[in-house]
Amino acid sequence: MQIAILLFDRFTCLDAIGPYQVLSGLPGAEVSFVAERPGPIRDEVGSLVVSASAGLPDVPRPDVIVVPGGPGQRDQMQDGPVHEWLRTADQGTPWTTSVCTGSLILAAAGLLAGRRATTHWLAMDELGQLGATPVTDRVVFDGKYVTAAGVSSGIDMGLTLAGRISGDHVAQSIQLMIEYDPQPPYDAGSPDRAPAEIVDGMRARSRFAVTGRRG
Amino acid sequence: MQIAILLFDRFTCLDAIGPYQVLSGLPGAEVSFVAERPGPIRDEVGSLVVSASAGLPDVPRPDVIVVPGGPGQRDQMQDGPVHEWLRTADQGTPWTTSVCTGSLILAAAGLLAGRRATTHWLAMDELGQLGATPVTDRVVFDGKYVTAAGVSSGIDMGLTLAGRISGDHVAQSIQLMIEYDPQPPYDAGSPDRAPAEIVDGMRARSRFAVTGRRG
Repeated sequence: MQIAILLFDRFTCLDAIGPYQVLSGLPGAEVSFVAERPGPIRDEVGSLVVSASAGLPDVPRPDVIVVPGGPGQRDQMQDGPVHEWLRTADQGTPWTTSVCTGSLILAAAGLLAGRRATTHWLAMDELGQLGATPVTDRVVFDGKYVTAAGVSSGIDMGLTLAGRISGDHVAQSIQLMIEYDPQPPYDAGSPDRAPAEIVDGMRARSRFAVTGRRG
Repeated sequence: MQIAILLFDRFTCLDAIGPYQVLSGLPGAEVSFVAERPGPIRDEVGSLVVSASAGLPDVPRPDVIVVPGGPGQRDQMQDGPVHEWLRTADQGTPWTTSVCTGSLILAAAGLLAGRRATTHWLAMDELGQLGATPVTDRVVFDGKYVTAAGVSSGIDMGLTLAGRISGDHVAQSIQLMIEYDPQPPYDAGSPDRAPAEIVDGMRARSRFAVTGRRG
């Protein structure tokens, strides 16, 4: 089972590493970090450099596609080799997935038209403008398309998908091995429950046009 | 504020990336991925290659040390350049931290003698044998020493530490930006609640000598 995780400059590392840490534990999993060109890719912070081990043509028929998001997502919205690869590879995938604003890339490539999908809470309107039907759940399945909310939700997406692919026992084993028994010190992980001034400030500074909808 | 994240071959990537994603969001944070020699470092799975941007002598006085764990931890238990760097750098740090079996490395370097600390649930006995006082909490503070439980707990550790360093508002903002509102699809992230046959199987296959203690 080949898992292809797409990389691009200024991706958000946890978007990619959350699902990677989980899905790489599936029996028979082989993971490729794929980019338009193989070689070093820098994350959004700029301190982390990850090697893309494969170029797009090297991974033509993955079983699972994972598209992360991040500030660099905005450079991945034009038609071109990445979109062509996504569309072609998607024709053969059992599962096509995204984390955070990675769903905007899938949508821009035409893969989420009319489909229920999610993204980072700040980008929900943008997702709708790209033809998907935005859903505020943390992990959204629409057939073989699996989209996750912001950044850390890729862990929940990975575990849910692990259960679908290999069964509950395998998914629970992975959860126990990574000791995923989350105990956040604050209850601020959702715009519904974070302090309002933090939510409003983040909306005001967002790179996404936001029309005032909450949640 | 300089944050030094130690890398070594066969580290567990989420151990490092969880705190990185959180702590890199602190005002003024600069993160260095540090290894015995700068250059490519392969993770435990073998599919991820991260560049260590700095060697140990390049980061003599970090403000925060983060030591991840992983199968490669066993190769970091002997005295040598890594332990020397840890001991010397620790003399000036406001915070010295670990995730998962990274605490075994800190303990082997002599930094956790008599201190309350935690680690991956499978390695608690080993931590005690190295002179620390094992505590089963998810994040354990003993003065400036902050240790986290297995793998994914580094996110909780990072947020807790972010609050101590920069205040609740900053930590909550980071939590909201990474949408850390965890919703695991199973309740199997702790040996207390995972199915017993999974816990027992994992203990039986563990690389750590386990004396039968639960939790």
